[in-house]
Formats: sequence, structure tokens, C-alpha cells
Amino acid sequence: MTVTLVGAGPGDPGLITVRGLERLRSCDAVVYDRLVSDELVDEAPADALRICRDGLGQEQVNRLLVELGRELDVVRLKGGDPFVFGRGSEEVAALRAAEIDCEIVPGLSSIAAVPAAAWIPVTHRGLSDRVTIATVHAADGSEPDYEALARTGGTLVLFMGLARLAGLADGLIAAGLPADTPAAVVSRGTLPDQEVVAAPLAELAERSSDLPGPALVVIGDVVALAGSLAPLATLSA
Amino acid sequence: MTVTLVGAGPGDPGLITVRGLERLRSCDAVVYDRLVSDELVDEAPADALRICRDGLGQEQVNRLLVELGRELDVVRLKGGDPFVFGRGSEEVAALRAAEIDCEIVPGLSSIAAVPAAAWIPVTHRGLSDRVTIATVHAADGSEPDYEALARTGGTLVLFMGLARLAGLADGLIAAGLPADTPAAVVSRGTLPDQEVVAAPLAELAERSSDLPGPALVVIGDVVALAGSLAPLATLSA
Repeated sequence: MTVTLVGAGPGDPGLITVRGLERLRSCDAVVYDRLVSDELVDEAPADALRICRDGLGQEQVNRLLVELGRELDVVRLKGGDPFVFGRGSEEVAALRAAEIDCEIVPGLSSIAAVPAAAWIPVTHRGLSDRVTIATVHAADGSEPDYEALARTGGTLVLFMGLARLAGLADGLIAAGLPADTPAAVVSRGTLPDQEVVAAPLAELAERSSDLPGPALVVIGDVVALAGSLAPLATLSA
Repeated sequence: MTVTLVGAGPGDPGLITVRGLERLRSCDAVVYDRLVSDELVDEAPADALRICRDGLGQEQVNRLLVELGRELDVVRLKGGDPFVFGRGSEEVAALRAAEIDCEIVPGLSSIAAVPAAAWIPVTHRGLSDRVTIATVHAADGSEPDYEALARTGGTLVLFMGLARLAGLADGLIAAGLPADTPAAVVSRGTLPDQEVVAAPLAELAERSSDLPGPALVVIGDVVALAGSLAPLATLSA
């Protein structure tokens, strides 16, 4: 019996890996995140146990995986990639402690796939050879390290709630990032109702305040390339 | 006619996306990177044109895609993800300039999938909530910005040739990163002959000097988790 952590990718069900889909189609039980698409959950065998982890704390998810993993081949279907802001490492540690076999099938993290869906390359020769990825909702409520983020010298990709965007932009600008740094919010990236707003950093929060989540924020000169790479008027600004 | 940039993923052919494989199976021509696995190239239809881009400069690849894209449905099969250190944005720009339709199907970048294959989570609650990804072979031969890299305060993931590793470690330590920071080299990540060496940053270059490429370097406290997450003696040190 094995528990396989499978990355479901950023939202679009076609962006799961071939191996991830294979594991899903042959499992006895699937424990899935709320943001995983229904189409993917439906790929599990008809008689598989299906459990949404919504409402369960991380400790409870860990215990559920351990209990199911004693008897069944389980797929733990997680949004994005299990090891990129996915707490997959906590789940693996719990399974190891219980001596249950586990496997990881990585998934497409939003960190590059969501900008790509908005035609924003996170790197571009001569423009950015460095990417820093961070979350801006620290569990303890502390402020992000604006100084460190402003000094990275490359593209910033931030997982965050848009309610904090105005404060983030102010903090980064105060720490030295130019107010006119190209920036964008990609809302519901890779999904049919994806929306993109591009604007100078100082104006981004105001222009994107009504976008639904989940949202990813991209800051850096690469954002300005999207206008020439996108096929249509993908960007509203 | 469309040119589709498809990310082949980090090496293991099972880690291409479902959509990427669909596009590959229905193309008229495939232009592929040398590091893409033969198994994937073989998925193209039997009568498809197959061109390895090895030996072609980027300008020539761009021109090839434009010429083929006028007449054929082309898959440009790239290692990793097209928009993460993949020069995919240069190829898209050339196709746009020639008014040829193009599409992107993102792939698993090595940046998270290769550390995961060595049981290293690039983030872990309480240990690292930030990841910086960089290349350490600047086209102009200049030194990396050690000060900026040493100050990011999170996990570092570096695409680089191992010949430069000793210099990199010295530079980061001189810039303030502790000499005993946990670090690892993952050689040929996700492939059957993958090798991993974990060591304190100051000793990593010496211990990993004989590993074959491609290699990825991971630096940060998360590396120390691998020992408890890996199923077997995956790490040699």
C-alpha cells in the first residue's frame, strides 16, 4: 500500500502529468484539495473513496493519510506542486513516522505556469536571470521582509491574498523598488475565467481590487514583455 | 498552423503534462532539445519530421520554427519549462513577429521537481517560505551577485555547471552565508541514474566534483529535511 502525493497543477486539468493521471486512475482512495478541478477528481475509479480535505486541519489530513494508507493505495491530490508551498513535506514526514510507503509525483507549480498563461516569462535573457518566489501571508501575521524582496534584483512571484496587495506595494516601494516597476495580477490562472491586470506597481492594487482568487502577483521587467508575446488583448490595464 | 512550445519536464518522460503529450502525438514536426528523452520524441507520429536543435544557435532555432510553422503544426519540445530559463520567450517573440500562431503548454521545471526527486522540499513551514532561483553561468562571464543571493533569506536553487561550484560556495560564504548551511547537488535529477550528494556548503564542491551533468544545486535548511523524508539511503554524504 502506498500513499502517492500527486501535484494536480495550477488549475487546468490538462496540466497534470501523465504519471500523476496514471496514479489517480488506479487508486483506491483520493484525498483532494478544494481547488483541484472536478474533472481530475472524476478520473479516480468509480468505486474509489473520494474525500475533500476542506475543513480539515493539516494534522487531521496527516492522520487521515496514515489511516487510509495502511489499507489502501491512496492518491493525495494537491493543487500545484506538493513541495512548493504545499505542505507536502509535512504529510511525507507523518507517513514516514508511521512507516507507510510514499511516493511523490511532482506537479506544475503556479509559480511559472500561471505567469506563462498570461504570456509572462519569469526569466528572459538580458532582462531577468533570477526569480524569487514567496508567500505574503505569514502564519504569524508578521510583515514580509520588504528589504530582502526589493533587493533580489530579479522577478518576484508572490502567492498572496489581494487584500494585502496595497500594503505590499507600499512596502516594496519604500524599500527601494521603483514605483513604475511593471507588475501584474493573474487571477484564476490557467482556468477558463482567468483574468490579468497589468499596471505599474504603485497602481496595481487599485486596478485589481475586484479580481477573484486565487491570485498570483508578478513584479519585474518581464511583465512588460507580455504585451508583445500575447496573441490578443489578453492584458487589460 | 500552430507552433506549440511544450515543456518536456525535468527528464523522466512520465513527467510531461497530459496536454503536452496530446500535442506531441498529433504534430507534423517536432523540434527538440538534446536533453529531452528519446521516449518522448518517439511519441510524435511516425511520419512526423524530427529535428534535434543541437548545434543550432538560438537565432537559427527561431528561424526554423518560423519556416516550419508556416506549413505545419509544430511542437517545440523543450527541457523543463519553456518560460523558466528556457528562452521560450525569444521563440514566441520571433513567431509573433512572423504572425504565426503559437501556444504554450508549460512543463515541470527542474526548480522544484528535481529537489523533490531527492526528497528536498524547497519550502517548509517554519523553515523556508521563500525560494530564489538563479543561473550561475552568466552569458558575459561575470560573477553572480553573491551579496544578493546570500541575503535572500530562503532556499536557493541554482542551475549551474559544477566546475563553478567551489567559487560559488566561496562567494556566498564571503557574502555572509554560514559555511555549514545544508546544501546538495542533484545530478541527472528524475532520471534512473540520478545521484545526490548532500554536504555543508563549504564541503559540497569537493564531495560532488565527479558527478555528471546536468546538475542542480540546492542551498538552505530544507536540504536537512531530506534525511527524514527519503525512503532509503538516497543521500550519500
